[in-house]
Amino acid sequence: MGDARRYLTIDDEFQMLHGRLSRPTIAYETLGKLNHANDNAILVLTGLSASAHVASSQEDPTAGWWEDVVGPGKPIDTNRFFVICVCSLGSFFGSTCPASVNPDTSAPYRLSFPVLTLEDIAHGAKCVIDHLGIERLHSVVGASMGGMSALAFALMYPDAVYAMLNISAAANSQPFSIALRSLQRELVCKDPKWKNGDYPFDEQPEEGMRLARKLGMISYRSAQEWRDRFGRERITGNVPFAHDNPFGLDFEIEAYLTSRARSFMDAFDANCYIYLSRAVDLFDAADHGGSIQMAFNGLGIERATILGVQSDFLFPPERQLEIKTTMSSSGIDVSFQILDSIQGHDSFLVDMTRFRPAIAAHFKDS
Amino acid sequence: MGDARRYLTIDDEFQMLHGRLSRPTIAYETLGKLNHANDNAILVLTGLSASAHVASSQEDPTAGWWEDVVGPGKPIDTNRFFVICVCSLGSFFGSTCPASVNPDTSAPYRLSFPVLTLEDIAHGAKCVIDHLGIERLHSVVGASMGGMSALAFALMYPDAVYAMLNISAAANSQPFSIALRSLQRELVCKDPKWKNGDYPFDEQPEEGMRLARKLGMISYRSAQEWRDRFGRERITGNVPFAHDNPFGLDFEIEAYLTSRARSFMDAFDANCYIYLSRAVDLFDAADHGGSIQMAFNGLGIERATILGVQSDFLFPPERQLEIKTTMSSSGIDVSFQILDSIQGHDSFLVDMTRFRPAIAAHFKDS
Repeated sequence: MGDARRYLTIDDEFQMLHGRLSRPTIAYETLGKLNHANDNAILVLTGLSASAHVASSQEDPTAGWWEDVVGPGKPIDTNRFFVICVCSLGSFFGSTCPASVNPDTSAPYRLSFPVLTLEDIAHGAKCVIDHLGIERLHSVVGASMGGMSALAFALMYPDAVYAMLNISAAANSQPFSIALRSLQRELVCKDPKWKNGDYPFDEQPEEGMRLARKLGMISYRSAQEWRDRFGRERITGNVPFAHDNPFGLDFEIEAYLTSRARSFMDAFDANCYIYLSRAVDLFDAADHGGSIQMAFNGLGIERATILGVQSDFLFPPERQLEIKTTMSSSGIDVSFQILDSIQGHDSFLVDMTRFRPAIAAHFKDS
Repeated sequence: MGDARRYLTIDDEFQMLHGRLSRPTIAYETLGKLNHANDNAILVLTGLSASAHVASSQEDPTAGWWEDVVGPGKPIDTNRFFVICVCSLGSFFGSTCPASVNPDTSAPYRLSFPVLTLEDIAHGAKCVIDHLGIERLHSVVGASMGGMSALAFALMYPDAVYAMLNISAAANSQPFSIALRSLQRELVCKDPKWKNGDYPFDEQPEEGMRLARKLGMISYRSAQEWRDRFGRERITGNVPFAHDNPFGLDFEIEAYLTSRARSFMDAFDANCYIYLSRAVDLFDAADHGGSIQMAFNGLGIERATILGVQSDFLFPPERQLEIKTTMSSSGIDVSFQILDSIQGHDSFLVDMTRFRPAIAAHFKDS
């Protein structure tokens, strides 16, 4: 398997909201070609656990995390657009992160990595955009944490973006989602193998990560989907109430969560996870202007598409409605749609029947 | 402080769905007086963490868990009704439970306690009702797990109950709530101090219980309530991003969860908790007839009041609607109401403005 990643190493000191990094690297992938008018670039910012590999390419033919959305003739059409997907600063998939070596000390950052914010992630993405010679993006695109990072980007660089596609996100984090993420981080940090962040990288706090992932899966999907998929089915061949393990798994839903949670823990570094998780808590668009409305009044985008999902209880529809209403009050031309997907917060990754046309519509008239 | 509990010790062997107990004890409290017609008795079955102390009395003047609902002149009026609240079999508050000594072995049951079901809890309650000489209850009342236990009771003893008040419950458990409870149990059982159930009783797996309770609190309340109560308030005097503890608590919601979770872990035995939690997963009214409809066709109740709460995502309104629709199809006279409470699943314990009249209405015309 190939690797389509490019790496931008920032020669200067990189100022973060709560600290600084020496010569960080930002990983990214690109698809399509920048046109001569320099007006067909789309920046995709990612969710918490996604890499820069948004879609397959000649260099890396493996399917990307948004394979059905990005590509030739697809809703984000790489025959028309130059797509840049940036690996978030702090993420484990190639950009400088808490698992990276600090060039000033020659030791991994671990918890000496500065507190991370979505503004820092947007800043890292802007460095890539500048490096590529792009003055103004056609669109900044993001879902979930990526949608919040897209807001941060547009708020910080009002001249650098014409339009926004924002999916299943919010203008800030509210206590319910903060509580869930706080508990997820606690599950990681209570694992004795976390060792206050000083675990050997090949001995991750897997148990804590696995439990955090289970909780994530519960909050990312929806009750209706699981009811339809699993009902009260029991695990095939299971001996319920076995005397040697009376609290073993019994229902199919329990087996599903366990198998899926295992696959996640192999792929992510624990410290990176808790830094990114906290960054989502910390984001508040109001920090850019005193209130969300005052902040949005400073946006430079001319139009936006705001999408949400009826069954999403982590970023519920009223959060997207708030973005829509506030942007409209700022004079931005907003297209708004709450989709009937049953897969909850994760719908943008799975309910392609609904999301493909909704995403395509954003790019139709431009 | 006094103790109003009575204890019924069952002389015979007590047959459970998945085992048997020798001479178990069922704790209960009563309020009011049984009338000569023997037709004013109300059985209250409890949620997972409640005791038999439903309301204050002369013997125990401390406030009960439903103090605003049960008492003289209150919605469940002890001037009119003889109220019996039974401590669930398996619960830590006086009935035989996994922490009790098995008289056959003189050692605590721990995980040798048979798998517990809500049918067993209903069976224990029926023993109390028989002991008190009550042939037919005016009503069986329950919320949450208590509502499911009330269904179990009415299904098992169709001649023993005239009416039902069922609050924020469901005819069975669905994968979303099973997933949450499964993860809660896992948090307890992964605590090294759980020791496969063999912990000393004064050295509970407090950490696991505390984490399970946090998750419970997240699922018992609602996003809207927390948004109204906490917003993005930071902890007073907090030093965010402290270098010695970069992932300490920061937001008020995190402090709230931590303080509330601590208070719980002192009051409950870990094994009892996981037995009761699993009992909720296992309940399915359809086990009493092949389908929920066929089971409900065998009910002996003449009328029912089914209440739910708009903001409850653990037992969402469609679950109460299912009970209502199915009972109506069985010819039962059903009163149905979904309340606008914002406190989620726990609303029946806190939103007295809405619940008092809704509960009172059930007893008005009888």
